[in-house]
Amino acid sequence: MEARTVLRFSFLFLSISLVLLFTFVHLPYAPPRMTDLLDCATNSPWCTSKNRIQTKQTNLLKEPPNRKRHHNHASDTPHHPLDPLTIQELKKVRSILSSHELFASSSYSLHSIDLEEPEKPLVLKWKKGDPLLPRKASVVARVRGKSHVLTVDLGTGQVVVRETGLHSGYPTMTMEDMTLSPFAPLANADFNRTIVQRGIDLADLACLPISTGWYGKSEENRRLIKVQCYSMEGTANFYMRPIEGLTVLVDLDTKQVVEISDKGREIPIPKAANTDYRYSVQELHQAMNPPNPISIEQPKGPSFTIEDEHLVKWANWEFHLKPDARAGVIVSRARVLDPDTGKLRDVMYKGFTSELFVPYMDPTDAWYFKTYMDAGEYGFGLQAMPLEPLNDCPRNAHYMDGVFAAGDGTPYVRSNMICVFESYAGDIGWRHSESPITGMDIREVRPKVTLVVRMVASVANYDYIVDWEFQTDGLIRVKVGLSGILMVKGTSYNHINQIPNQENLYGTLLSENVIGVMHDHYITFYLDMDIDGSDNSFVNVNIKRQQTSSGESPRKSYLKAVRNVAKTEKDAQIKLKLYDPSEFHVINPSKKTRVGNPVGYKVVPGGTAASLLDLEDHPQKRGAFTNNQIWVTPYNQSEQWAGGLFVYQSHGEDTLATWSDRDRPIENKDIVLWYTLGFHHIPCQEDFPIMPTVSSSFDLKPVNFFESNPILRFPPNVEKDLPVCKPAASV
Amino acid sequence: MEARTVLRFSFLFLSISLVLLFTFVHLPYAPPRMTDLLDCATNSPWCTSKNRIQTKQTNLLKEPPNRKRHHNHASDTPHHPLDPLTIQELKKVRSILSSHELFASSSYSLHSIDLEEPEKPLVLKWKKGDPLLPRKASVVARVRGKSHVLTVDLGTGQVVVRETGLHSGYPTMTMEDMTLSPFAPLANADFNRTIVQRGIDLADLACLPISTGWYGKSEENRRLIKVQCYSMEGTANFYMRPIEGLTVLVDLDTKQVVEISDKGREIPIPKAANTDYRYSVQELHQAMNPPNPISIEQPKGPSFTIEDEHLVKWANWEFHLKPDARAGVIVSRARVLDPDTGKLRDVMYKGFTSELFVPYMDPTDAWYFKTYMDAGEYGFGLQAMPLEPLNDCPRNAHYMDGVFAAGDGTPYVRSNMICVFESYAGDIGWRHSESPITGMDIREVRPKVTLVVRMVASVANYDYIVDWEFQTDGLIRVKVGLSGILMVKGTSYNHINQIPNQENLYGTLLSENVIGVMHDHYITFYLDMDIDGSDNSFVNVNIKRQQTSSGESPRKSYLKAVRNVAKTEKDAQIKLKLYDPSEFHVINPSKKTRVGNPVGYKVVPGGTAASLLDLEDHPQKRGAFTNNQIWVTPYNQSEQWAGGLFVYQSHGEDTLATWSDRDRPIENKDIVLWYTLGFHHIPCQEDFPIMPTVSSSFDLKPVNFFESNPILRFPPNVEKDLPVCKPAASV
Repeated sequence: MEARTVLRFSFLFLSISLVLLFTFVHLPYAPPRMTDLLDCATNSPWCTSKNRIQTKQTNLLKEPPNRKRHHNHASDTPHHPLDPLTIQELKKVRSILSSHELFASSSYSLHSIDLEEPEKPLVLKWKKGDPLLPRKASVVARVRGKSHVLTVDLGTGQVVVRETGLHSGYPTMTMEDMTLSPFAPLANADFNRTIVQRGIDLADLACLPISTGWYGKSEENRRLIKVQCYSMEGTANFYMRPIEGLTVLVDLDTKQVVEISDKGREIPIPKAANTDYRYSVQELHQAMNPPNPISIEQPKGPSFTIEDEHLVKWANWEFHLKPDARAGVIVSRARVLDPDTGKLRDVMYKGFTSELFVPYMDPTDAWYFKTYMDAGEYGFGLQAMPLEPLNDCPRNAHYMDGVFAAGDGTPYVRSNMICVFESYAGDIGWRHSESPITGMDIREVRPKVTLVVRMVASVANYDYIVDWEFQTDGLIRVKVGLSGILMVKGTSYNHINQIPNQENLYGTLLSENVIGVMHDHYITFYLDMDIDGSDNSFVNVNIKRQQTSSGESPRKSYLKAVRNVAKTEKDAQIKLKLYDPSEFHVINPSKKTRVGNPVGYKVVPGGTAASLLDLEDHPQKRGAFTNNQIWVTPYNQSEQWAGGLFVYQSHGEDTLATWSDRDRPIENKDIVLWYTLGFHHIPCQEDFPIMPTVSSSFDLKPVNFFESNPILRFPPNVEKDLPVCKPAASV
Repeated sequence: MEARTVLRFSFLFLSISLVLLFTFVHLPYAPPRMTDLLDCATNSPWCTSKNRIQTKQTNLLKEPPNRKRHHNHASDTPHHPLDPLTIQELKKVRSILSSHELFASSSYSLHSIDLEEPEKPLVLKWKKGDPLLPRKASVVARVRGKSHVLTVDLGTGQVVVRETGLHSGYPTMTMEDMTLSPFAPLANADFNRTIVQRGIDLADLACLPISTGWYGKSEENRRLIKVQCYSMEGTANFYMRPIEGLTVLVDLDTKQVVEISDKGREIPIPKAANTDYRYSVQELHQAMNPPNPISIEQPKGPSFTIEDEHLVKWANWEFHLKPDARAGVIVSRARVLDPDTGKLRDVMYKGFTSELFVPYMDPTDAWYFKTYMDAGEYGFGLQAMPLEPLNDCPRNAHYMDGVFAAGDGTPYVRSNMICVFESYAGDIGWRHSESPITGMDIREVRPKVTLVVRMVASVANYDYIVDWEFQTDGLIRVKVGLSGILMVKGTSYNHINQIPNQENLYGTLLSENVIGVMHDHYITFYLDMDIDGSDNSFVNVNIKRQQTSSGESPRKSYLKAVRNVAKTEKDAQIKLKLYDPSEFHVINPSKKTRVGNPVGYKVVPGGTAASLLDLEDHPQKRGAFTNNQIWVTPYNQSEQWAGGLFVYQSHGEDTLATWSDRDRPIENKDIVLWYTLGFHHIPCQEDFPIMPTVSSSFDLKPVNFFESNPILRFPPNVEKDLPVCKPAASV
């Protein structure tokens, strides 16, 4: 009885806190003050709203990561037409909106406030020194249950409400949606009862907001989320302690419990032992032999510069870089120096992570809906946490902060969200030795040095490490690393012996009572290639076997490259085939090399796992942008998000697949290339309790873009430039 | 007329030199003296035999690469049963053979002298401190036109002549075969005439020995090679200046010209301009902006040790490493520490590059035969040149020398042939951040540090960078990088406009008069996996779509992993399929984890280009080991070379494909996994005049091998362990 009293008191206390908190973060029109510039890592209200759950953990928490510098963003001003909105600009948007009739008479939430990028031709024409193009914000707001897209002109104060069409779906959740909805079940007596009956101390409860997907009419016209809970008793890694089978459907707008599905009561909560991954709690009982400290050193310092906060210049590259709440990182205006002319040449107008699709392979009640779209549902950038110097990025990394807006429009700073660093792994850029065959004493070798732009999004359990790596030979490698923690399922089984022969676990038994459920990851990239200008074509260079005719050759067969220029979008819907291979070029048909090859870049696939779900399955319809691995669409400013602008609970009528099926002409047009990196993940015990990083990448690689090897003139390393470093401390 | 006199004189002079040289290197039974210990990079006769050709170049040559140390190998003794033959042992072999009747009465050549590894069970049982197992050499010799395989017992002096069966093919060429055959055409008047008529100064001639392959009966019973020539006038990169259409067929044993094919006289030799890649001759006329010097630094030094010259110990790994004349690098007895028991566990008994297959895609007279098998024809290790410190491998690399035998059995040292170093690229081993969703302040990140074993084989024009990379999480990544110089074809065309519509160039016009001919690269690896012991099984874990039944779930479909244990070899002949994907596990069926999963490693494919040639084409029959990307065979000490022991001019009756087609049982047996890395290469202008490195890799990855993440206890980097380095010079 006493325990129950405590619970009731907790619940009352929580409810009051929640109401207060809710009110606070929705308090409209508070005059912007410096205290509004929240650094989420230290003092934002929704970060600390979880402190209640954390209290028990406090002693386990290590000190916050050290930060190298603290840039005061309050006085930032934009310098480039693509620079993100500054704090001052975000405040101005908030202020303009506050006097707009739409927001006058009721509470609202702002789901995103982003720069509305100027028209592409204007940006292409703009040069440093020119007056900045008019600054506009694109705002997605929900008012009285309706979504609105607005354009706010920061110069004139004008607000234009844009047509959003009749598509299904809701905007990306606000951080408040994600942080508050997990508390909603606590207001429900049935939920509290089952928690207690399962023997869980409410103080140990950790609940996650899980996007519902869309499975039919019952979910229409209501913004819904499913909440599932875990026990954090005895471990910071509560993800390994699921309260299996308990799913609470919550209305995201009202935070009311709609439905509780309470199954799997017989399934024990897996033990906490050996689940905590933090260094501070490891028992170092075995003689492991970790390598000595190691780092990348540059005696003359890093050789990149970042002009006006966002324009990165390194070796033969120049590009604009900015954080984005939805995409994470946006790389724009990537240009590379031509070694023959000394001029910068266009390669890519804009590249970013457009959408993710992460379907789990378990059709049962508590799992079927887990088909995440992390960018459009959760905000890939919103989930990018401050990077940890010396571990997330090596010494000499430059860190870039994100400036985002809370649900009420208040700007806040996400510090150290992106890092930029030069990498050298000991690899070779190009080389040649002459051998005894010729007897010439030649050894020419160049080290391979690259520039990496990194962001890590931690979407609850999973960590996505997204790298844009620029090579001096003109290649851009886009790499995604998966680490973090599995989403696991509770089970009664302790050993495979116990499992009946025909039973499908939907995954791997990783530990006693823990199943790692099989799943896929698809990360779809938007790549607006502009090869020496905007009008480009897509060429499928197909490698075909040719048979020789009788007497033609001692050879019966050889391979031939056959070029097929894509006329319309359907020509460029590509499923990769290892036994019918092709290269995929984006070329500029009007620009030829000296000997007449069209200049181009090719996309070199990697991470080629393809979605195999039924095309008519709801998740696959919503994730139809993974139906092909490569697509090409004509440039259209409104077609940037592969799952649609409003992807949350969308029905899939507005995806890359539907756009592409219009089959528009794409030859010698401004075109956008889409590539999807895919992973099939059958978990294994090594993934427990936290996963060693698995990476895949694809390349954008020059192909007859340069007249010849562009790095011929780069020098080798020589001893005098790389004196042996001594630790400064030891001097 | 004067020019002609000079030519004739040159020719006479050359002939005499050749005879002398030939005699010298075949001088039998010379008592071994210290001067016999040739360092090929400095004073071996066949290296310097080309000095004649080089004279014109001398002023262009840069200084020889600096070498860190000079280990005197004269007193090396073996410590481990798998240690390669030492100089003393090679001398002893030579001495034993010198008194054997087979070599008594005529000249001979020794094509290889290698350690004959002791039986696997004996090696597995052997422990440090035990007496060394009996040392034996395996010798391949040619005497009076016949190939012999001999076992020489170094203890007893006994020589056993082994049965080699009736297979076609010849042994790997000796270095003398390769260095002398290019001179053979000079003894032919027709050859000299056409060279002069084409306007080439004989002093500028550079000729290459090109393996002929096998195309039918006419090539039987005679060891043949094709010689093609280039002009090195004005460039060290003679490869870009082919004398197109001229092919000289030479008898490798007699060095006589068998046939001259002299076509393409109308094709000009491409210009030398812009072909030289050496830094010393670059004009730095454009403002390129190379990155600042960069290196990998370890304030406490490297953390690997190499015991007794060959046993590498690093972090949680231990393995035996040795150079090999044919394979390049052999990794043996790779074992990884179990963090729970503190014991080393078997992973791989032996791994190496078994064969390469490099078919060019041009069926015409001067090109059809170019279907190289670089290991079995040229000796992948024989072509591995000394590595260049700070460029081929970073600071702190350890260099290992190779000790090989010349054609007369004389040992020589190939210095700095392999390097071993720790790599850190700024990557992340594992990580997790908690996000605002949970509000917990957790950022746990571990840097990814690896140990790389590297060798670079320069097989004439191409450079193959072969890396074995060991990760602390138990993963082994095998990576092959391709750099060096293309094999190009001369053409009359200067511009694509000139090419008739239907004409097939068989490649890409790279520069005026230069075609980069399309080709493939296949590198086949022998991987004798021993997962916790020798008896293992191969499991195809197939990922299959399942449809749900009506009413079962809101989902229509999901994926399921279906395990199929291979019973016989044909079950394990794998062609990869992206739309019918599988994981490929090597498991120990007798060893289970705590929860009952069989312990295993999986091969994770990469570099998945597959050979598409006609299976009945002669080159593909010889290269039939590329008919599948994965094969599994039962362990058989005689089945190590995927193209057969005698691959030169072989007919393809003794390849991995023929062994595998016997369809022997492989379940719960000692099995060998074979994986082929493949590349399709359509050259592009960026590959001219030297290619930026292109890499692919595959992984051997633990899958339920460990009970849990094995690197949980590795520490993060902390500031105090990585003090900022200052160049020692600046102090």
